[in-house]
Amino acid sequence: VRSSDLESSRSLYNGISTISKGGECTAIPHGRQFLPQYAALINGAYGHSLDYDDTHRESSIHPGASVIPSIFAAGEVFGADGKRLIESMVAGYDVACKLGMAVNPAEHYAHGFHGTGTCGVFGATAAAGMIADLNTSELLNAFGINISQVAGSMQFLENGSWNKRLHPGFAAHNAILAVNLAKSGFIGAVKPIEGKYGFLNSYTHNPDPEKAILGLGERYELVFTGVKPYPCCRYIHPAVDIVLQLLKDEAISGEEVERVDVEMVRAGYYIVGHPLERKQNPQNVVDAQFSMPFALAIALLRGKLTVDEFNNHNLNDAEVKRMMKKVNVKHSEELDRDYPQKWPVVVTIKTKHDKLVVRKDYPKGEPEDPVSFEDVAEKFKSLVNHKLGEERVNEVLKIVRKLEKLGDVRELTELLIEEK
Amino acid sequence: VRSSDLESSRSLYNGISTISKGGECTAIPHGRQFLPQYAALINGAYGHSLDYDDTHRESSIHPGASVIPSIFAAGEVFGADGKRLIESMVAGYDVACKLGMAVNPAEHYAHGFHGTGTCGVFGATAAAGMIADLNTSELLNAFGINISQVAGSMQFLENGSWNKRLHPGFAAHNAILAVNLAKSGFIGAVKPIEGKYGFLNSYTHNPDPEKAILGLGERYELVFTGVKPYPCCRYIHPAVDIVLQLLKDEAISGEEVERVDVEMVRAGYYIVGHPLERKQNPQNVVDAQFSMPFALAIALLRGKLTVDEFNNHNLNDAEVKRMMKKVNVKHSEELDRDYPQKWPVVVTIKTKHDKLVVRKDYPKGEPEDPVSFEDVAEKFKSLVNHKLGEERVNEVLKIVRKLEKLGDVRELTELLIEEK
Repeated sequence: VRSSDLESSRSLYNGISTISKGGECTAIPHGRQFLPQYAALINGAYGHSLDYDDTHRESSIHPGASVIPSIFAAGEVFGADGKRLIESMVAGYDVACKLGMAVNPAEHYAHGFHGTGTCGVFGATAAAGMIADLNTSELLNAFGINISQVAGSMQFLENGSWNKRLHPGFAAHNAILAVNLAKSGFIGAVKPIEGKYGFLNSYTHNPDPEKAILGLGERYELVFTGVKPYPCCRYIHPAVDIVLQLLKDEAISGEEVERVDVEMVRAGYYIVGHPLERKQNPQNVVDAQFSMPFALAIALLRGKLTVDEFNNHNLNDAEVKRMMKKVNVKHSEELDRDYPQKWPVVVTIKTKHDKLVVRKDYPKGEPEDPVSFEDVAEKFKSLVNHKLGEERVNEVLKIVRKLEKLGDVRELTELLIEEK
Repeated sequence: VRSSDLESSRSLYNGISTISKGGECTAIPHGRQFLPQYAALINGAYGHSLDYDDTHRESSIHPGASVIPSIFAAGEVFGADGKRLIESMVAGYDVACKLGMAVNPAEHYAHGFHGTGTCGVFGATAAAGMIADLNTSELLNAFGINISQVAGSMQFLENGSWNKRLHPGFAAHNAILAVNLAKSGFIGAVKPIEGKYGFLNSYTHNPDPEKAILGLGERYELVFTGVKPYPCCRYIHPAVDIVLQLLKDEAISGEEVERVDVEMVRAGYYIVGHPLERKQNPQNVVDAQFSMPFALAIALLRGKLTVDEFNNHNLNDAEVKRMMKKVNVKHSEELDRDYPQKWPVVVTIKTKHDKLVVRKDYPKGEPEDPVSFEDVAEKFKSLVNHKLGEERVNEVLKIVRKLEKLGDVRELTELLIEEK
């Protein structure tokens, strides 16, 4: 809901509106007049635009932003109830995340691919395929079509462009397309994952194919999906956790900090820490979402890191700029050994009279350091309360708490349409 | 037109029809009731389904199947005239083909990517972007969006699936999407081609970046695009040329052939010659389109290789099967040295009393061994005359001969709609 105000969202909405006619699916918060694939595209892009959506650590992807929009769109077409939503969500998360683990996330990134987009299309297809009641052979054909839809690029890092926001949107959109083609009898390639020219061979190095089916039916990746407390790249989070905790404990205060050194894993380093000079000089909000120096500077100076901090005012603030220069980021091969099971950082803070060294292995919001339902409810409220009334917000929370009792997905989506 | 009868086309048409409403663009030969992106998708897929569309040798891609549908769809929306069609076609072919050369086609294939799909989306975007009158910054943003849409996989080779047919369709579809987003102000990644995570770095090895702009404004790739005389993979063509010429010269006759050996370049070998046992036993029409043994067996036994030969009857014919077993294919590193400037094959034919060795560097239909406008007109007639009347076929040919005089693309597309 909050994302709909962004400039990128307005241009996406306008662009889609010129090439979409009719339809009965809900693009949140705009309304129910979209073809399913475009509702999925808009919801997927908006859901990821604040970089505030869920994260699966071992695959290093954001599963929800592609899987849930795909489920909503297909669910509205096929009249899915709450139980079906949950089942398909479990399946979609499992497919996307296990593939993300199999693809070897550090190598996948190093080759320029954004797993949220590439793995997302398979996960979104699994979920929508379940809702559309595809039989096994149709579902295999849908995955076989996916291999011709796998895209997503890290090149956005070079200019802070908006591509990243599109990736889960494209994944959900392409899933709806693949499911409909498969349902109409289209024959896709076999072995889209493990084949000679399949996903694992074409899109990464040193994949770990067994992980694609690791613990299938026993270990559900949805359970291992983390919730973000800060609207920026997940690789930044454990360092922010450390800083905010130190501030809370009054072990440091922002003004006395002279230097901050962050050691981190390779996969994250090249996304949020390198090249350092650029990361210390973010040019726009996307840059800031991927800047360790920006996040730590804000955390140190404002004592919090919410959506409201990611704005041009803070980007141009002299005090913030000075503080960013004090934040250094380094890649640590030693920490790589624990990746991707852990996402460790070591933060060293120097003040005039002190030097603190703190290591954290799991960002807040992971199962190892969980947030409560109430925390999530507060986060939700902070993002929607300018557009949805209090009554509807509470109604949504009530439904989500007992999602398995929901009769039809439309009862939920209609509550998420903006009141004009 | 002819492709619309295929099983793959029917399922594509049905799948798209369930998720598309409204629109005023022409899907050939169905009619004018499609959203532009779906007209582009259908036309692109149909245009490539018989593997009978044009080929650009040095990039090893099929540029027309993605560029022309993109132009038709955008052209119908923006009212393009013949001159505009030609200009945008020249631009689209140039972008797609030069990128295909830069990407190093043999390596691109080896990594599992189908250049027709991957390079196609950039070419189709250049063409549609010109028709939509994007300014420079918008066109750059459209290319910047493309990097998140680059897909296309060779995995279809494993089961003769229909994915390949989708690739130019997806490329044209994605181009319409990218152009519309860019026109609405969406900001794409900079350096989508040459950037650290750009196309040349993420999708191939040993790229040749200078080729992306080689002779820009002086050498037009459209001129170097070949026309296929046989409806199968272009890598098969020079060998078929040799066999048909030998038959015509009465140097051999089909029944006396004991063994055929084809030596060819690596890029083509892994597509049409390897694994040999599978290539000698095509299971379906897609397999046959990529089988050197099938093509040569048919050429030797029937003395021709037209669309009518690619059917299940011939796949199961005992005589064809015996002949396929006599055809061997080998990779020749020596021939690789001339690739991709030349596409050489050496065919050795053994009969009881003779052994013929013939080398051919360019398939028929290349600028070095051209076909005439009349040849192309005959090919066109053979593909459309079951659905379009003689009068309309002649009308189309008249327009195409003087395309620069055409007032509006719709005058052309309306002639290509099936008479019911």
